[in-house]
Amino acid sequence: MTKRTILIQIDPDPQPSVFDRVVALDAGADEVFSYGGVQREQVRNLVHGAIFTRGPQDLRRTALFIGGSDVSVGEALLQEALRHMLPQFGLRVSVMLDANGANTTAAAAVRSAARHLDLAQTTALVLGGTGPVGQRVARLLARRGAEVRIGSRQPARAQAAVEAIRRKVPEARVQPAPSDLSAALAGCQLAIAAGAAGVLLLPLAARRACPTLRVVVDLNAVPPLGIEGIDVADKATERDGVIAYGAIGVGGIKMKIHKAAIARLFERNDLVLDAEEIDALGEGG
Amino acid sequence: MTKRTILIQIDPDPQPSVFDRVVALDAGADEVFSYGGVQREQVRNLVHGAIFTRGPQDLRRTALFIGGSDVSVGEALLQEALRHMLPQFGLRVSVMLDANGANTTAAAAVRSAARHLDLAQTTALVLGGTGPVGQRVARLLARRGAEVRIGSRQPARAQAAVEAIRRKVPEARVQPAPSDLSAALAGCQLAIAAGAAGVLLLPLAARRACPTLRVVVDLNAVPPLGIEGIDVADKATERDGVIAYGAIGVGGIKMKIHKAAIARLFERNDLVLDAEEIDALGEGG
Amino acid sequence: MTKRTILIQIDPDPQPSVFDRVVALDAGADEVFSYGGVQREQVRNLVHGAIFTRGPQDLRRTALFIGGSDVSVGEALLQEALRHMLPQFGLRVSVMLDANGANTTAAAAVRSAARHLDLAQTTALVLGGTGPVGQRVARLLARRGAEVRIGSRQPARAQAAVEAIRRKVPEARVQPAPSDLSAALAGCQLAIAAGAAGVLLLPLAARRACPTLRVVVDLNAVPPLGIEGIDVADKATERDGVIAYGAIGVGGIKMKIHKAAIARLFERNDLVLDAEEIDALGEGG
Repeated sequence: MTKRTILIQIDPDPQPSVFDRVVALDAGADEVFSYGGVQREQVRNLVHGAIFTRGPQDLRRTALFIGGSDVSVGEALLQEALRHMLPQFGLRVSVMLDANGANTTAAAAVRSAARHLDLAQTTALVLGGTGPVGQRVARLLARRGAEVRIGSRQPARAQAAVEAIRRKVPEARVQPAPSDLSAALAGCQLAIAAGAAGVLLLPLAARRACPTLRVVVDLNAVPPLGIEGIDVADKATERDGVIAYGAIGVGGIKMKIHKAAIARLFERNDLVLDAEEIDALGEGG
Repeated sequence: MTKRTILIQIDPDPQPSVFDRVVALDAGADEVFSYGGVQREQVRNLVHGAIFTRGPQDLRRTALFIGGSDVSVGEALLQEALRHMLPQFGLRVSVMLDANGANTTAAAAVRSAARHLDLAQTTALVLGGTGPVGQRVARLLARRGAEVRIGSRQPARAQAAVEAIRRKVPEARVQPAPSDLSAALAGCQLAIAAGAAGVLLLPLAARRACPTLRVVVDLNAVPPLGIEGIDVADKATERDGVIAYGAIGVGGIKMKIHKAAIARLFERNDLVLDAEEIDALGEGG
Repeated sequence: MTKRTILIQIDPDPQPSVFDRVVALDAGADEVFSYGGVQREQVRNLVHGAIFTRGPQDLRRTALFIGGSDVSVGEALLQEALRHMLPQFGLRVSVMLDANGANTTAAAAVRSAARHLDLAQTTALVLGGTGPVGQRVARLLARRGAEVRIGSRQPARAQAAVEAIRRKVPEARVQPAPSDLSAALAGCQLAIAAGAAGVLLLPLAARRACPTLRVVVDLNAVPPLGIEGIDVADKATERDGVIAYGAIGVGGIKMKIHKAAIARLFERNDLVLDAEEIDALGEGG
């Protein structure tokens, strides 16, 4: 009898996400084991339970999903999970990280822009570029060859984000954005807003004053939006001469990427799906 | 591929009820997501996870069940859940409340009585009528046209319960029962005991002294029963000239109503199944 | 419609074991209800939810599994669960105890030895024989007629273990092992090491000095092993003239016994599967 596919949902929040659980089922997982309030020291037993129960030929039918609302906590749990795999004995299972939806959201934003722009020829401003989603957006853009400017109200944080990206993507063309918005936008074809909810990052006047701008993507779903004059449901909608995407418009693409990533987990037992790997899936989907 | 039906069990008790979980599966839910120790402030995320993951045509395949041992906590969680639906965008899922089994028990008690009496022509005494089950029994009887007397050792609580019922059912014929038991029973065809476990509310002598009485229903499963001289397993059993139901006798009807209500949740995405709606289901079943 | 089989996993550890959950599914349980952090006073409600939801003809399709990392806590939860069954009304479900894998591990160790030895004609030394696994190994050997010596660094604990076994198996031939290892081994055909991880209990020299020894079984998976000179993956492997089993070698047999026990739970509604019952299953498998 073919063994059922099992996704082990590891969530540091007190109640494991309903969102992640529904998407896992709809992506085809037969069973979801949902763990909430997961502490780092509990990860070892969860991983051992995954790798010691099925034979090597069936290990691809068990996988881990690391979620929760805090991306840095999720990253620590991912490292901890990898530490307890035993690849030298073939004892490992695939893992996906999507804390706060950061990886699938960043991949969806970049893929939306790539529908309209040749990213290798694009200059992009990432507003709110030092947060977990913004950093991932900037990294994915840089990896695809774009010239990237990271906007932040705190120059030191922008510089730190730039250095973090360069460590992961040595060939990256990335730098802090000038603090003056019109200078930051000058020559850009793409602006993506990944800031905190309810903070306006790109006023309509600034947008209109930038003649090179062709695509804007706003990842904030709660009004007021980060980019003035567009709608949360915009999906390749023309707004004042630019192509606009709002958070809900990007959401459909995000959901497809999320489901494709879950399905991918069960094809092999040695995958680690973080931002880049999820973005790569997106390209084929 | 047809999406699996999902029931999200929201339970404020530390361990989510096995009872509710088994019944949900046996009623046909494909998957049950069980959440225990749910705090009011956690409900928003649970609801958003339900309404933001599936398209409008599939939202009826996700539903919420609110349980737990405390009815007033359950009522507060229901209000909180409704507050986070977004009906203006069609984003909502159906919800059922059955904390402590109060709604299904009350509906089962009333339906048992209705097998033998024309409730619109009935005068009923509800003993223990100020507790969560008793109030629901009284309300359902009043809505079906019965003249209802609410028994309680504390007249102020009986008066408060009467007023609460009148707010929900303006046409209700309901009043506090006289404190003297023979006066309270005078002219009644029906007596339902919904008091605390182990408290005798209707002695055999008082029952025999009431010539109009035709049906008695006792909802207490733990001896001593609330109605003297009947058995917990009585189901339309004749006892001293009246038709008697004990808690286990009512239990089979309660289980049918519970399962019918769960199945009903997955027919539409806009139902709120509280006492009245569950009672209405019972009529057809 | 046939009701789905449900295994209710009762685990006192904060996160219910992934291992037990995967094995339960792979053994054929349709659904696993996983409860973590279970306190003794919560067991009553879990049991009542199991026995009050399905009719007598379907009760065998619900069962309990008691796990967790602490065997004595598991034993207490088993007693508590049995206390809340209502066999006088036919209201009970089957239960299996396998806290820390102790029962399935002990049964697998004994079955491994029985492949090579007539246990009724065997003298056996159980090193680390006072711990939860060691005591079970000794008890199962004694029940099968072996003469058993219980090794421990603390003579008082060995004596206590001997008495505990005699209470359960009055005909047992069991005694504390001499504190001198060569005396303890003298005349033994079998040595089983069930001590704490990383403690060497049987050095190679001592093993070689015992001419009667034919089979050794080491239940410790973490190097250094309890028995020097064998490998954790040994499975009936010859080592210096004896037949050796390491923890992983025993693990395959343990897994088969575990799955057979889970499947057995759903054949009747009145089983209590503790060490002896699980060992008996092993014989047939």
